[in-house]
Amino acid sequence: MLKASTGDGESLSTLGELEIVERIRRQVTARAPLGAGPESSGVVFGIGDDAAVLRSSPGRYLLATCDMLFEGVHFLPGVIPPYDLGRKAMASNLSDVAAMGGQPRFALVSMALPPSTGAEAVTKLYEGLIDEAAEHGATIVGGDVIRSPEGVVINVTVIGDVEEAKLVTRSGARPGDVLLVTGPLGAAAAGLDLLRDDSLRRTVGDQVAERAIAAHHRPVPRFREARLLADLRAVRAMLDISDGLARDAATLARCSGVGARLFWERVPVASVAEAVARAAGKDPVAYALSGGEDYELLLAVGIEDVERVVKTLAESTGRAPLQVGEVIEPAKGLVMAMPDGTERPLEARGFDHFVH
Amino acid sequence: MLKASTGDGESLSTLGELEIVERIRRQVTARAPLGAGPESSGVVFGIGDDAAVLRSSPGRYLLATCDMLFEGVHFLPGVIPPYDLGRKAMASNLSDVAAMGGQPRFALVSMALPPSTGAEAVTKLYEGLIDEAAEHGATIVGGDVIRSPEGVVINVTVIGDVEEAKLVTRSGARPGDVLLVTGPLGAAAAGLDLLRDDSLRRTVGDQVAERAIAAHHRPVPRFREARLLADLRAVRAMLDISDGLARDAATLARCSGVGARLFWERVPVASVAEAVARAAGKDPVAYALSGGEDYELLLAVGIEDVERVVKTLAESTGRAPLQVGEVIEPAKGLVMAMPDGTERPLEARGFDHFVH
Repeated sequence: MLKASTGDGESLSTLGELEIVERIRRQVTARAPLGAGPESSGVVFGIGDDAAVLRSSPGRYLLATCDMLFEGVHFLPGVIPPYDLGRKAMASNLSDVAAMGGQPRFALVSMALPPSTGAEAVTKLYEGLIDEAAEHGATIVGGDVIRSPEGVVINVTVIGDVEEAKLVTRSGARPGDVLLVTGPLGAAAAGLDLLRDDSLRRTVGDQVAERAIAAHHRPVPRFREARLLADLRAVRAMLDISDGLARDAATLARCSGVGARLFWERVPVASVAEAVARAAGKDPVAYALSGGEDYELLLAVGIEDVERVVKTLAESTGRAPLQVGEVIEPAKGLVMAMPDGTERPLEARGFDHFVH
Repeated sequence: MLKASTGDGESLSTLGELEIVERIRRQVTARAPLGAGPESSGVVFGIGDDAAVLRSSPGRYLLATCDMLFEGVHFLPGVIPPYDLGRKAMASNLSDVAAMGGQPRFALVSMALPPSTGAEAVTKLYEGLIDEAAEHGATIVGGDVIRSPEGVVINVTVIGDVEEAKLVTRSGARPGDVLLVTGPLGAAAAGLDLLRDDSLRRTVGDQVAERAIAAHHRPVPRFREARLLADLRAVRAMLDISDGLARDAATLARCSGVGARLFWERVPVASVAEAVARAAGKDPVAYALSGGEDYELLLAVGIEDVERVVKTLAESTGRAPLQVGEVIEPAKGLVMAMPDGTERPLEARGFDHFVH
């Protein structure tokens, strides 16, 4: 019933992920127009940011976000340990709440499991989910467990909250702002390549391989940085980089109605990503631009606040954020400034789950 | 990695659904003890009721619940129209919030879709989700769309709220209370049997078949009744019947720490369920006891309030709730009083998704 009929023939694989999501967003918001305002529906921002922003008690917003993971699509069967999978599934949602300046509070976990699934593996999976939630102040409060005909499916919903004044969306960037990232990128994507290619793994050696695979299996979202940044109230727009710097910079620009210029030479590449890229004969910058799941933060900061932001993060976390680009007029679009002084269009296409 | 190792060998199919969920509940609550109280974690009730009860603003609780559906397990591929599927997936979650006396506010929808899925079918599915949510005052505020290697998976999370004084849990029933249901049961289960058996469908005739299948595809949760009952403040415990009367009565009794006695003769069977049962040579009461997804409400009411509850619902909705049993001392367990005056243990086993 859900198959494309032979008549109209338009299937998801012809549309692609962004178009599908955009159509759904339009369909949903057509019925609940944002203009209707939080007074009537309680929805301050719906689909389109890291998390939905909802009116709750006076002075505070509720934040809600969810992610679904399917075995074989988002994690490799028999590769990621169940405990790590649990932590990662929870972390990506906690990170979305943190990237809005919020504090995660509650989580709901739905899981489809084949009957052959080992009980011990399920326990480990929940241990990872629970540990990651607890470490960041959240509690699992509900969920669902169902039978899967094939493949594990995990959906995590996280509910958090934020003081109104500390909310940081994706949509406040203005031309002239500086684009910063909280740390080097590409390690998780390099780790995924190593998991897929044994000979590459042998080439880079055990030490690099272990670090890159750890980055893929056990990413460290930047909760502390996000909290510090929200407290500073100096960030105009922020999101966590889960689809790669190029795609997420494009998202931030689109949500803010601005353009963006990245500087090729300043794209910060994790040292393990460089080592793996060398061994694979790839461009290391490509890992940072299109590899997702590092969960570093991308932020737009007014030029007058950059020094304060850099200093605060450097002093509190030991890691100074790195300037990777700048916000430009919308008409200038999305561009990459190359070392030779030329500019090229920023390739914002990351991994599309529906089109291959 | 999630397979049972050959060594310990304990897989989900040997444990069964209730035991799996109970283990997860214990694992989660061991880390976030209920005794810690809402002051620290914000969790008033976690796993175990229709929805989690969370501390939000003074005088109000936040409610959160989710359900996952997998094609082939919870709905039949190519049978339920996408629009109906959307409405049903949303309705079951809205119903969980309503069954706690709450008002649904926000929904998040995650969906795994095979690339071959038709774009039109996805639009219809969301139309159903949106219509059902809007009809009951809720807005879709977020979600996720991912690729599925095979089969559609839908997860709906609903967030609602309730005045503290109007919260109705599953855990307040006391011995002596009367057990009521808001309407006849079994139609949805009869509809499912018809969808699985063409010859049975021919036997019962088009008119009965259409009504039973409609009950299965387009259940009508009792939002209005739930609201009226919450306003009355006369209900000690309530839940929506999604697993069949026997299993859900057992759940209510377990959550309240009491026993329950149902009266065989008073189990209300929907007329279409009776017609289908006759044609199938089944006991019609079995449909009502073990067939789920009717979404009528089961409630425990103090004997002094029964008249008021019955009168209010009858006058406001035109349907008087039906007395199906009574709450008894915990030591007396779960029993069915038969027409001949004997009692037998209540078979609380509904459909187990993991054990067949």
